[in-house]
Amino acid sequence: MAHINEDFLKLPGAYLFSEIAQKVKAFKDEHPEADVISLGIGDVTQPLVPAVVEALHKATDELANGATFRGYGPERGYDFLRKAIVENDFQARGIKIDEDEVFVNDGAKSDTGNFQELLSKDVRIAVTDPIYPVYIDSNVMGGRTGVLSSNGHWSNVIYMPCCAENGFVPELPHSREKIDVIYLCYPNNPTGTTLSRKELQKWVHYALEHDALIFYDAAYEAYIQNDDIPHSIYEIEGAKRVAVEFHSFSKTAGFTGVRCGYTVVPKTVMAITKKGDRITLNPLWNRRQSTKFNGTSYLSQRAAEAIYTPEGKQQIRQTIDYYMENARRMREALTGIGFEIYGGTDAPYLWVRTPKGTTSWGFFDEMLHKAQVVCTPGVGFGPAGEGYVRLTAFGQHEATKQALERIKSQIAK
Amino acid sequence: MAHINEDFLKLPGAYLFSEIAQKVKAFKDEHPEADVISLGIGDVTQPLVPAVVEALHKATDELANGATFRGYGPERGYDFLRKAIVENDFQARGIKIDEDEVFVNDGAKSDTGNFQELLSKDVRIAVTDPIYPVYIDSNVMGGRTGVLSSNGHWSNVIYMPCCAENGFVPELPHSREKIDVIYLCYPNNPTGTTLSRKELQKWVHYALEHDALIFYDAAYEAYIQNDDIPHSIYEIEGAKRVAVEFHSFSKTAGFTGVRCGYTVVPKTVMAITKKGDRITLNPLWNRRQSTKFNGTSYLSQRAAEAIYTPEGKQQIRQTIDYYMENARRMREALTGIGFEIYGGTDAPYLWVRTPKGTTSWGFFDEMLHKAQVVCTPGVGFGPAGEGYVRLTAFGQHEATKQALERIKSQIAK
Repeated sequence: MAHINEDFLKLPGAYLFSEIAQKVKAFKDEHPEADVISLGIGDVTQPLVPAVVEALHKATDELANGATFRGYGPERGYDFLRKAIVENDFQARGIKIDEDEVFVNDGAKSDTGNFQELLSKDVRIAVTDPIYPVYIDSNVMGGRTGVLSSNGHWSNVIYMPCCAENGFVPELPHSREKIDVIYLCYPNNPTGTTLSRKELQKWVHYALEHDALIFYDAAYEAYIQNDDIPHSIYEIEGAKRVAVEFHSFSKTAGFTGVRCGYTVVPKTVMAITKKGDRITLNPLWNRRQSTKFNGTSYLSQRAAEAIYTPEGKQQIRQTIDYYMENARRMREALTGIGFEIYGGTDAPYLWVRTPKGTTSWGFFDEMLHKAQVVCTPGVGFGPAGEGYVRLTAFGQHEATKQALERIKSQIAK
Repeated sequence: MAHINEDFLKLPGAYLFSEIAQKVKAFKDEHPEADVISLGIGDVTQPLVPAVVEALHKATDELANGATFRGYGPERGYDFLRKAIVENDFQARGIKIDEDEVFVNDGAKSDTGNFQELLSKDVRIAVTDPIYPVYIDSNVMGGRTGVLSSNGHWSNVIYMPCCAENGFVPELPHSREKIDVIYLCYPNNPTGTTLSRKELQKWVHYALEHDALIFYDAAYEAYIQNDDIPHSIYEIEGAKRVAVEFHSFSKTAGFTGVRCGYTVVPKTVMAITKKGDRITLNPLWNRRQSTKFNGTSYLSQRAAEAIYTPEGKQQIRQTIDYYMENARRMREALTGIGFEIYGGTDAPYLWVRTPKGTTSWGFFDEMLHKAQVVCTPGVGFGPAGEGYVRLTAFGQHEATKQALERIKSQIAK
């Protein structure tokens, strides 16, 4: 009988958000009258903007007509979209990225999960703690992480704790530790904190000096308000030699259901064979994608193109402002009643210290049972997330307001 | 510096269809006046049917409205689609498949490529020769195939040649060979041939007896005309204990640009740990998908649902009949001028023996230069494809007719 990939069996059974969903369901079954408000899972609520809607209708009509029908698209994604990406997300910021360095995908989760396939099993990864679980889980499946210790850390992964005590700025690893790949996500999921240009420069320098790769997840860059915070790691000199960058339209334009994003693999980013030959990752990623992926829906690619039009840009900006208004109100209200709050100024996430040393799950239960508000336990993102919960600004204004009132009356002392 | 996954470097540089595209481009550059007709790559040409177009417009309008907006979908795909799949593709044929055994995806290529991840590196695979390249290439990336021999075979893969001499029916492997996974694709890409119910029974019995898995690609089942040919391997008693089945709407409903398909992983299909514990693959595949994939576009899922409505069924049947009329004309015309033809009666592909012992690529060049018709060299699908080319029935009627006339006047003697 076929042997299983036993690395899969090392993964803890439940995925964080499934566990939350089960607890919420159990509560609702017991309290059918309760009006539960979710500030938990990071899903958007506002409709697609008119420019995107128009593009989707138009693309549908194209596929309905034999003269304009399109089947399989180009392996890296359509030229029209890669051109819009290069011009707007990079050239406009003074960054030179070639169109064949951009790979359109069906969302950042797939590519952040799959990119490790290009690397050997002996590669050592470093991650911040807390962290978006996909970076680690995909490396568990890839056999690189060792065993799960009782403290919640994998034995072969290097963790860089981010907490209030260090201002949520990860420290550079000790020079004696061999590190091949560093995962960074800024603006950060889950903490909502950011890295300044100067802080990010340190990481690029570290990677250049130590021949490490940086996998940079920029899924939340559209939420940045402060000019000193880089939108792309390629704003930093030298980054094109060490960094792969992942983008998503999920949060930028409400595409969590539409599915489209992109990955940038500069032709100067390399890995090495055992013999010492340097290999360019760009064509290898293209080979991976053309073998195990067949492109994103034409409709989704036309929808993504529309967010780069003048109307599209203005409309998605309004939606982002809508969510950031939630974030502002949440920060204000929660700070006002004595909570210790991080993030939420350049990101749609707030990272909230639980009161009186309650555990993350303990506070999750309290919030659900007393205020009927769903949050995400910080410990679900890693041991350093213990004692925090994540709140998201993706709700409707009215629901968010209600949630804050309930927290004020039911939770705060 | 990070070590590369050297298994990726074993892959031959060019993907078959990229090589064809380059040759066609070179010809067109030299002969800008030439009207090249492609009967090569397996892409559809007919527009989406009205039921699908209507569903896409409707779904777009749902996402344009805050009250009906949807973000992330369920991990296995929406209930409405899995229900339609189970009822129409299985219950209607007397097969019991549970909804949680169905995983909606973005097309069969992704899942046929990715499913091998669940298995250990020491798993031995068997494939027909010729074969759809993704099955092998994804296993090369997975480190299972050994080295590429000069005869075009990988040292650690078991090949089952399919050619005119054995009626394109693969022979059961010798009992002394350890085989863990058998890839079967019927109706077959590239040969267009099929397996009868009785032949498929032999494979299920073999798998049950030898504790092997069957990865069954049913992407072309909608083209079956003959009642004796199974549409699903689960029509065979016992198959639910050994087979994973891949479906695609790409050819069924012209979704090559829309991207939707599904995979069936019965809860009775298992693999084994080194210690001997049997592990159910269904939850493991769910874990893989919820970590490294985030679902197919809501729009594509609504589009797929529409092909199961009475109007949708009738409309996609008309498109399939249109293509099969091409196949009939191609068979008739080519047979009439002395070509030896296989397939094309229950599949959109014709497998054509090259005349006078010409090689596949030799005949490809002759067709391109003399008749300006693009075909696919059979050898691109494996060594046993040498001496054949694949023609597809996915063209427009008029273009297909012209291509046949040119072949008749320029190629036939």
